[in-house]
Amino acid sequence: MDSDCYSLCEKLVPKSYIQQGRNARTVHQSKIRHLLEQRRIPDEGWCDQTIELFLNELAIMDSNNFPDNCGVGEREARIFSSLVSRRHFRLGHGIGRSGEITAVQPKAAGSSLLMTLTNSLALHALKLSGIQASSCFVVPMATGMSIALCLLSLKQKRPKAKYVLWPRIDQKSCIKSIVTSGFELVIIENVKEGHELSTNLEEIRTKIQDLGASNILCVLTTTSCFAPRVPDKLEEVGEICKSQDIPHVINNAYGVQCSKCTHLIQQASRSRVDVFIQSTDKNFMVPVGGSIIAGFDDQLIQHISKCYPGRASSSPSTDLLITLLSMGAQGYKDLLKERKSNYKTLQTRLSECAQKHGEQLLATPHNGISMAMSLSTFQCNEESVTDLGSKLFTRLVSGTRVIPSDGKKSDICGQTFTSFGAHCDAYGSPYLTAAAAIGMTSRDIDLFITRLDKVLTKCVKSKEASQVKS
Amino acid sequence: MDSDCYSLCEKLVPKSYIQQGRNARTVHQSKIRHLLEQRRIPDEGWCDQTIELFLNELAIMDSNNFPDNCGVGEREARIFSSLVSRRHFRLGHGIGRSGEITAVQPKAAGSSLLMTLTNSLALHALKLSGIQASSCFVVPMATGMSIALCLLSLKQKRPKAKYVLWPRIDQKSCIKSIVTSGFELVIIENVKEGHELSTNLEEIRTKIQDLGASNILCVLTTTSCFAPRVPDKLEEVGEICKSQDIPHVINNAYGVQCSKCTHLIQQASRSRVDVFIQSTDKNFMVPVGGSIIAGFDDQLIQHISKCYPGRASSSPSTDLLITLLSMGAQGYKDLLKERKSNYKTLQTRLSECAQKHGEQLLATPHNGISMAMSLSTFQCNEESVTDLGSKLFTRLVSGTRVIPSDGKKSDICGQTFTSFGAHCDAYGSPYLTAAAAIGMTSRDIDLFITRLDKVLTKCVKSKEASQVKS
Amino acid sequence: MDSDCYSLCEKLVPKSYIQQGRNARTVHQSKIRHLLEQRRIPDEGWCDQTIELFLNELAIMDSNNFPDNCGVGEREARIFSSLVSRRHFRLGHGIGRSGEITAVQPKAAGSSLLMTLTNSLALHALKLSGIQASSCFVVPMATGMSIALCLLSLKQKRPKAKYVLWPRIDQKSCIKSIVTSGFELVIIENVKEGHELSTNLEEIRTKIQDLGASNILCVLTTTSCFAPRVPDKLEEVGEICKSQDIPHVINNAYGVQCSKCTHLIQQASRSRVDVFIQSTDKNFMVPVGGSIIAGFDDQLIQHISKCYPGRASSSPSTDLLITLLSMGAQGYKDLLKERKSNYKTLQTRLSECAQKHGEQLLATPHNGISMAMSLSTFQCNEESVTDLGSKLFTRLVSGTRVIPSDGKKSDICGQTFTSFGAHCDAYGSPYLTAAAAIGMTSRDIDLFITRLDKVLTKCVKSKEASQVKS
Amino acid sequence: MDSDCYSLCEKLVPKSYIQQGRNARTVHQSKIRHLLEQRRIPDEGWCDQTIELFLNELAIMDSNNFPDNCGVGEREARIFSSLVSRRHFRLGHGIGRSGEITAVQPKAAGSSLLMTLTNSLALHALKLSGIQASSCFVVPMATGMSIALCLLSLKQKRPKAKYVLWPRIDQKSCIKSIVTSGFELVIIENVKEGHELSTNLEEIRTKIQDLGASNILCVLTTTSCFAPRVPDKLEEVGEICKSQDIPHVINNAYGVQCSKCTHLIQQASRSRVDVFIQSTDKNFMVPVGGSIIAGFDDQLIQHISKCYPGRASSSPSTDLLITLLSMGAQGYKDLLKERKSNYKTLQTRLSECAQKHGEQLLATPHNGISMAMSLSTFQCNEESVTDLGSKLFTRLVSGTRVIPSDGKKSDICGQTFTSFGAHCDAYGSPYLTAAAAIGMTSRDIDLFITRLDKVLTKCVKSKEASQVKS
Repeated sequence: MDSDCYSLCEKLVPKSYIQQGRNARTVHQSKIRHLLEQRRIPDEGWCDQTIELFLNELAIMDSNNFPDNCGVGEREARIFSSLVSRRHFRLGHGIGRSGEITAVQPKAAGSSLLMTLTNSLALHALKLSGIQASSCFVVPMATGMSIALCLLSLKQKRPKAKYVLWPRIDQKSCIKSIVTSGFELVIIENVKEGHELSTNLEEIRTKIQDLGASNILCVLTTTSCFAPRVPDKLEEVGEICKSQDIPHVINNAYGVQCSKCTHLIQQASRSRVDVFIQSTDKNFMVPVGGSIIAGFDDQLIQHISKCYPGRASSSPSTDLLITLLSMGAQGYKDLLKERKSNYKTLQTRLSECAQKHGEQLLATPHNGISMAMSLSTFQCNEESVTDLGSKLFTRLVSGTRVIPSDGKKSDICGQTFTSFGAHCDAYGSPYLTAAAAIGMTSRDIDLFITRLDKVLTKCVKSKEASQVKS
Repeated sequence: MDSDCYSLCEKLVPKSYIQQGRNARTVHQSKIRHLLEQRRIPDEGWCDQTIELFLNELAIMDSNNFPDNCGVGEREARIFSSLVSRRHFRLGHGIGRSGEITAVQPKAAGSSLLMTLTNSLALHALKLSGIQASSCFVVPMATGMSIALCLLSLKQKRPKAKYVLWPRIDQKSCIKSIVTSGFELVIIENVKEGHELSTNLEEIRTKIQDLGASNILCVLTTTSCFAPRVPDKLEEVGEICKSQDIPHVINNAYGVQCSKCTHLIQQASRSRVDVFIQSTDKNFMVPVGGSIIAGFDDQLIQHISKCYPGRASSSPSTDLLITLLSMGAQGYKDLLKERKSNYKTLQTRLSECAQKHGEQLLATPHNGISMAMSLSTFQCNEESVTDLGSKLFTRLVSGTRVIPSDGKKSDICGQTFTSFGAHCDAYGSPYLTAAAAIGMTSRDIDLFITRLDKVLTKCVKSKEASQVKS
Repeated sequence: MDSDCYSLCEKLVPKSYIQQGRNARTVHQSKIRHLLEQRRIPDEGWCDQTIELFLNELAIMDSNNFPDNCGVGEREARIFSSLVSRRHFRLGHGIGRSGEITAVQPKAAGSSLLMTLTNSLALHALKLSGIQASSCFVVPMATGMSIALCLLSLKQKRPKAKYVLWPRIDQKSCIKSIVTSGFELVIIENVKEGHELSTNLEEIRTKIQDLGASNILCVLTTTSCFAPRVPDKLEEVGEICKSQDIPHVINNAYGVQCSKCTHLIQQASRSRVDVFIQSTDKNFMVPVGGSIIAGFDDQLIQHISKCYPGRASSSPSTDLLITLLSMGAQGYKDLLKERKSNYKTLQTRLSECAQKHGEQLLATPHNGISMAMSLSTFQCNEESVTDLGSKLFTRLVSGTRVIPSDGKKSDICGQTFTSFGAHCDAYGSPYLTAAAAIGMTSRDIDLFITRLDKVLTKCVKSKEASQVKS
Repeated sequence: MDSDCYSLCEKLVPKSYIQQGRNARTVHQSKIRHLLEQRRIPDEGWCDQTIELFLNELAIMDSNNFPDNCGVGEREARIFSSLVSRRHFRLGHGIGRSGEITAVQPKAAGSSLLMTLTNSLALHALKLSGIQASSCFVVPMATGMSIALCLLSLKQKRPKAKYVLWPRIDQKSCIKSIVTSGFELVIIENVKEGHELSTNLEEIRTKIQDLGASNILCVLTTTSCFAPRVPDKLEEVGEICKSQDIPHVINNAYGVQCSKCTHLIQQASRSRVDVFIQSTDKNFMVPVGGSIIAGFDDQLIQHISKCYPGRASSSPSTDLLITLLSMGAQGYKDLLKERKSNYKTLQTRLSECAQKHGEQLLATPHNGISMAMSLSTFQCNEESVTDLGSKLFTRLVSGTRVIPSDGKKSDICGQTFTSFGAHCDAYGSPYLTAAAAIGMTSRDIDLFITRLDKVLTKCVKSKEASQVKS
């Protein structure tokens, strides 16, 4: 309501009461103004009322909501179902234009503002996490497809290149993003350092020499990963890339939440990092479907955004915007702190549980999110290992993975892998992984340890039982 | 509630009343069962109550909503904001797996069902529109990025191929999808037939001979387009593709709504159509962000879905599912009929308006969605043409386009175009386009004609006025 | 957003696009301003977007939503559940004060505005319906309790009075409202005029003479009722009340929707009408729970509102406000027209059906909502009549009533009635009623006639069958 | 979904995943079954998902939502606005029948269940709070109107009675409830015991003797009140009522939250308590508009419910049901504990603040919710006292009251009161009250003390300043 409205209100309700209501409105208003001015995550999170107010203001600015609009185009953001309309706060035009995904739309000032602000807030979130990136944009695709977009964009600058050097990380979508983009995958097998599986820098150097730097599109490293693999040695890879003039692309899937990962990227940026990609769902607790493409070179990031053909769903941006406004910078930092503390608790508890059952927690100090517990006593009995996994699944433990050391061969996108899932051909013993990700609660840890303990006890018993039988 | 619950209810409220309530529940239930059984759009649209009931049932089946779940993975679909959670009906896991976008997720039976059903319903919708496709899937990307995915997938089957033959259609995202995918754009300039701009079949044949069929990734044709361009001659192109063994990809962006376009695809399928891509927003009145990738060969479509790296947002699928359930087959067919009738009305009214102002409606009988009105009297005065466009924009006419005949050169993705937007280098006269798209109302037509008439009257006057001055 | 915000937006998105968005906002704004200025139902209904915008503006003005509020009272409108909060648009303070139900609350400027505006719009709705009332207020109680409040309020002005003269209308809540308020019910039995049951004016005059005018609290007449009873002769009763100085209270439960009823009230106001009460749910298609207390004398209506002890739920007011804004004056008038037309259709169809089965539609021209069809062939067989009713209920016909002519005695609030439900001791034959109320659709009529026809056919058959048997 | 549906699902998604989803559904289901079986507040609160699931199940059972219903009645719960429909979870029929407010409706099995369950849960809540009542029902009216209903109901059993004995409590709605019901108010002035204002038992006994027990409708006592008044001596009043056979009605407005009040009622029930009334909003953190009418004699409570004329809004019941399910018994008990602890904190902090400014906290140990701080230094200057109140209001302190000792006469419902608001004619000094009500947070206390301190400091200064001036 504007001041005319408030004056009219004063004819119905005493002025001093209206004045207080109006003052309250100013508080919401000034939060919005501050956001538009600073384009940063507010220190203190917004309440849902302010968030909805703001989204409604944006929706009003889109042409499909103009009371007097008449549409004679092929795309007018008409929404058939009111259920659908409501869930998008009446926003229908998506983000971007055929021009590029970060372009504004004449028909949709509100959606354009939403897109621009979300990108700014995402950049701020990266900075809060420890990466002083200079530019980023949110794209409504998960990390796999986003990496593909980055690779294709780089291709335009390196038309001759066809190889992607890839320190092995056993995750299908990453492999697919390379193969689907039309590049040849050059696997750099990891080296075992203590319990950790880590980057084979020597092998990278050798491959570069073998293939020729100019034929290599990029080195694609990974931060966040399942233990006992640890984040790649980004600084050293960055050095190599810098010296050989090879782009360095980082798959930072769920690494934003972990200072170990963000620190690595920040350090590597001093040598060479071209672009790093992270998921919105895994780092910011929104539904699956978005990722942030970021870097330290504005022009490169802009180039990638311009390679995106056409407009796109605004849904992941909307989710991220709401979430960051709702968390506030302080809330986000608290979540990061809590995650770190959960990580330590999980480590302690899992270690205790392992010892009780004659196993050990693998020493993987470079991995700040995932950890692994050996399953040595299951070594002779692969069936039991798989069985353990499904027992945990049935007991509603989600997210844990049981890795047998079976040496099985798999074909992934035409490439043969031994022991796919283990990040190396032969790790030596089976193990089980667990992760302390953002949003985990201490209840999660309690339930997990209790259930794991029960299942291990049962497994051991049934193993003994089956030994007796045989 | 199950029968135990209902028995308990009967202790509180007379049995006969409970029985009626229970019967009502059975009606909803049997709609859902019928959907799961038939996997087709229900004849009669569902009310929102049944739709929400069904979505809630799906959400309950996803692990992030399990009351006793404990999550120790890196991706547990935890949702921070309840605003976000509600707008996704508590679904957070997205669709697909790293395996492929049409794969089911162990953690998310509900989301997996949603994905599978939406794909089935989308196929049914295509069939209702006149295309007897055998397979399709919904992907949370707009048409541009989806075309790119298709091209990249074809590349794996034709590793040598590097050219895309492309009958000119002046739309940036389409060009980008080719260039970003790393292919070379081979422009086939259109021929003018009467007022229509149409496919130059001769030039296609020549280019194939020049470049060599095996070097050509595909011919990328277009159906829906702005008049005076008309849908490509799909049957004839299909024949050429068949005889030369070249894939035929069709950009059917908003063509599902128009029987002229769907008929062409259906006919072409008898010779050769590999894959055709359409937007969900433009054809089914959902927000921007999804498209349907479809074809007549199950294996090829499955191959494309397997090339998609990783999981993806379920938001566009959710929107489409809700919308198709809400429309019902009958409602959808009614919308198609209404569109056709609106097209005729718009044609008549625009023609009358054109004549009043000394112009004419261009004769483009092959284009069933878009039409164009000449602006010959503006020919000498390019400024006025542009001015006309912005005058209409200011008067809240959205979607109309004013095309000057300026012969201006533009650089689009490294390619030089003359008169970009006109689909040809020199059409002869400026014109204005308007379209009768699905969901248009007769009010849209009324307002458009009224405002156009006013603006034209004013333009003419100011033209005369400015002539007087000079 | 204010102009500062928009200026900031212009740094992110081109000014001309922002300008259009801002203009759109002005449209909503000016609707709100117009409402505050005119305090009438807008001619054209508002879209949900404007309605929600307005309700959110109101909610912001209530102290429970003040971002910096601190509450140290016993009633701070803290809302525990966000589900509850959302469904009330975050309004929690209710309406009224201990002072009176139409008083404004210092803590709740928004809720106070909501209450005031709803009362104004309700008055406008009455006027549109044909009653030029001068004052009214919405109370969150159904008609029964509201009539009780009115009677108790009148009592304060007529401390000696203890009788309520009541032309018989067989509806329990009306009787209860009199008895619960502590008054003595003086039943005026109806007279049969043709098929109609109507007001016995002579009996009223006699009773007044017998009891003494000053001992009579009021005559409580009724408009809307089930045929064959017809609205009371309000004008004539008004004349009597005027001449004897007895208050005239009218139970206009669902009569607002029917010009026959509203015309009677308007005419009676020229002689004497003190207060008339109507339900919000039955007349305006909102959930059960509110009524409008209205009259032609501001002071009396204000007196009643001041008798209401304390504050009250704002829920019925919120529902009515949303609904009237959403309908618009035009939409409301269309609904009234449609109802009238449905009434005629139902009359024709029911008459045809009656004739087919050897029955007739009773001639009750003074009742514009309800109609009755004789069930003479069932006369000898009361069981069948009841059976007919339950058969219709099972076939999902709701709202029809089957009245046997059984002469059964019932005790209602200590009063003995013969044939309760029939409005008279002995009507002569059983009958079935049906009503054409606001919001009825032609589908309702079709289904009703089809089902009734089936049931009657079956009943006749089973009657014949049972005759054969016996 | 039923087992047929799940079997069909298993054709689309592997059986083991569907099985898990189905198990999850069982968890929700069994919560609902448990509720229907026990009709008690669940120990652990339900999540919103289960609550919405349950409400949707109820809504399905109401005839207005029957897919095949045809309505030919005058009240079919048709809801015009989808905004309104959604906010009521599609429930429209309200609660009760013309029969009585606790009767079930044939047309609305769902709403009837909702009503019945809410009443059971409300009874459980009273028991958890310490009152072993045997019967209660929720009525959609605030306490004032509910007390009126109780008085009128009692009247039917004591037709001769016309006086209500009323230990003075300066709250308008309570006075109105007596006067509007047509009774004569007999004020029992409080006695000052220390700082406390308490029940004058002697005066009650005298008045009974003067007026005659059979002429007295009831004694209407109060529990929750602003300090320095304290809850009435219920046990002693109960004894008097028992011995004189006079009904005892207790206004327990916001006393459910305080064990001091509930204990008094429980104790008094051993002598005589007929009915006690409490607000839902003040005790259970729902919006204003409902109250619970409760007692220890089932028949009396049923009698009152039968006196309610007609049906009523289900909105307050819905709010209470959602809230109690969401809190759970444990959550509710935690809130009670937290309130008690807040009370102590507020006491300490306010006492400190008082001392700093040369004032004191009044000693009112019998009042467990409200407390008062003297404003003796303001005694000579009534203007300042009022000024203090408005200063606090402007600083967003809501709920505090400043009571001058002005001896002003007021007319309330025809009765003259001296110093209305102070519960006695002359308390001696002005004071300020504050309350620790359920849902208060420690932030509320902090802000309040800070702001009060500032305002007192300022007031003193301006007082000194004005003294200097004069």
